[in-house]
Amino acid sequence: MKTYGFGVDIGGTTVKLGLFRTDGELLDKWEIPTRKEDGGSRILPDVADSIKAKLEEKGIDGADVQGIGVGVPGPVTPEGVVRKCVNLGWGVFNVEEKLSELTGYPVKAGNDANVAALGEMWQGAGKGAKSLVMVTLGTGIGGGVIIDGHIVAGATGAGGEIGHLPVNDQETLVCGCGKKGCLEQYASATGVVTLTKRVLEASDEPSSLRELTELTAKDTFDAAKAGDALALEVLEQFGQILGKGLATIACVVNPEMFVIGGGVSKAGKIITDVVEKYFIPNTFHACREAQFKMAELGNDAGIYGCVKMIL
Amino acid sequence: MKTYGFGVDIGGTTVKLGLFRTDGELLDKWEIPTRKEDGGSRILPDVADSIKAKLEEKGIDGADVQGIGVGVPGPVTPEGVVRKCVNLGWGVFNVEEKLSELTGYPVKAGNDANVAALGEMWQGAGKGAKSLVMVTLGTGIGGGVIIDGHIVAGATGAGGEIGHLPVNDQETLVCGCGKKGCLEQYASATGVVTLTKRVLEASDEPSSLRELTELTAKDTFDAAKAGDALALEVLEQFGQILGKGLATIACVVNPEMFVIGGGVSKAGKIITDVVEKYFIPNTFHACREAQFKMAELGNDAGIYGCVKMIL
Repeated sequence: MKTYGFGVDIGGTTVKLGLFRTDGELLDKWEIPTRKEDGGSRILPDVADSIKAKLEEKGIDGADVQGIGVGVPGPVTPEGVVRKCVNLGWGVFNVEEKLSELTGYPVKAGNDANVAALGEMWQGAGKGAKSLVMVTLGTGIGGGVIIDGHIVAGATGAGGEIGHLPVNDQETLVCGCGKKGCLEQYASATGVVTLTKRVLEASDEPSSLRELTELTAKDTFDAAKAGDALALEVLEQFGQILGKGLATIACVVNPEMFVIGGGVSKAGKIITDVVEKYFIPNTFHACREAQFKMAELGNDAGIYGCVKMIL
Repeated sequence: MKTYGFGVDIGGTTVKLGLFRTDGELLDKWEIPTRKEDGGSRILPDVADSIKAKLEEKGIDGADVQGIGVGVPGPVTPEGVVRKCVNLGWGVFNVEEKLSELTGYPVKAGNDANVAALGEMWQGAGKGAKSLVMVTLGTGIGGGVIIDGHIVAGATGAGGEIGHLPVNDQETLVCGCGKKGCLEQYASATGVVTLTKRVLEASDEPSSLRELTELTAKDTFDAAKAGDALALEVLEQFGQILGKGLATIACVVNPEMFVIGGGVSKAGKIITDVVEKYFIPNTFHACREAQFKMAELGNDAGIYGCVKMIL
């Protein structure tokens, strides 16, 4: 094992990079813009240049670099092939081979949500666990399944796509994936807004939420904490849908813990409490011991998980 | 690697045993009764005696035995601890340690449905696949999830308990597990009978099924093949529930294939066709390439998977 490694979490707006010691210590982190023009062809060369510059800045000998782990916002096969990252303008190609050519280092690639799960397991909320499912409640829902310390990448790179669990046959709105009634249509930040608008429309009761013009998930959870009856109704619906979704996942992989992250999770304990309330009665009895924890690494989970892949 | 291994699949009525070459060839198989009296305390000594007798019969040197794999009808932790096998009268103890003490060989234990999945992957319908989910449609529903060639045993031994996926909030009947609305209440052999009775009760249409006093799942599927309209309606309901259940599983672990086994699967291609029909629109687009195959090893899947565990 060499002394240094890089974690590179490629997002639609910025690329987050981290220089790590291979014992897990984060030495430096920084960002570069994601240049999506020309089919995203500049993204990996920009990453390679940034890594080279960082090595020069720190006076680190390139021979002492173990490798580079890369997270991308889309499916990645176990062989490192991305299958269209719409957010980056990418088509189908092997990210590992390409970045390895550009840098000369071994490269391992993974889906960003899966990699974040691995990061939380290694240095965050899941430290010490052998298996966990991470649920990132952001604009959409990302998921990562870790079993025996390894990412379940899936046969076509779609392991942990739990935002698209079918949870409602009756839905009329179409999810970004093209289906109707996906988990992320209700339990993501945008999903909570949908639930809130529906609850407000279906009732004549007063609510502090009616005064807001640009409703956010945070508004709903803040109102619930303040005791607003309709916001509490949304919270219950959210818990019922997400708790049952996680109950389903537990019947499949029976994880030691669920780690909840992403913007929505900032609402705190009311989230894990209401999810656990509906998780327990819906899952198989032997799966009920699963712990629920808040993510600890925030936006750094990705770079931690990336570098872990090459250790 | 030594030359021989044993697979021991412990069921509620009989114990199935197999003597294998470690290259995968089944040399001999036989059964002994499962003696459940005295808290099932005679089961493992009976297995040990039977193995010893078989070695003598075949003139095999005990030093040439790699080990014993054991499948049990209940949750088994990764450490080999059974957590109450109600069918066997067992409490909580370490099966691996106990059978190893009795025989002198290394022992690896697993849940019977998980082990059957491993067997199908090794020498059956899943040969050559890296990941699969096996669904055994019998009196209940057993499930086994295999990722990168390894069983997902689960943190508390309940990996692959897909018979207990929550699929119906409105159910009033209680499942054997204590919940209401589990997958196996609709898609197992007994579940198909429930669906059939409900469809017959809700309609005045004629059906060949109305003449039967002791309805079975086979009757329903035979009638569907013969074009009976109500039986076809049951087939659609069955496909919808199971197809959507497997769609959910695919969003979690994105397997290369589903292998369908158990008594209900004997109805043949109408089963996989109707399940796939509802699987595709309900799962995430990147998961739709999953293949659907019929199990090939029948009741021998367990002993194959058992011996595979010790190789």
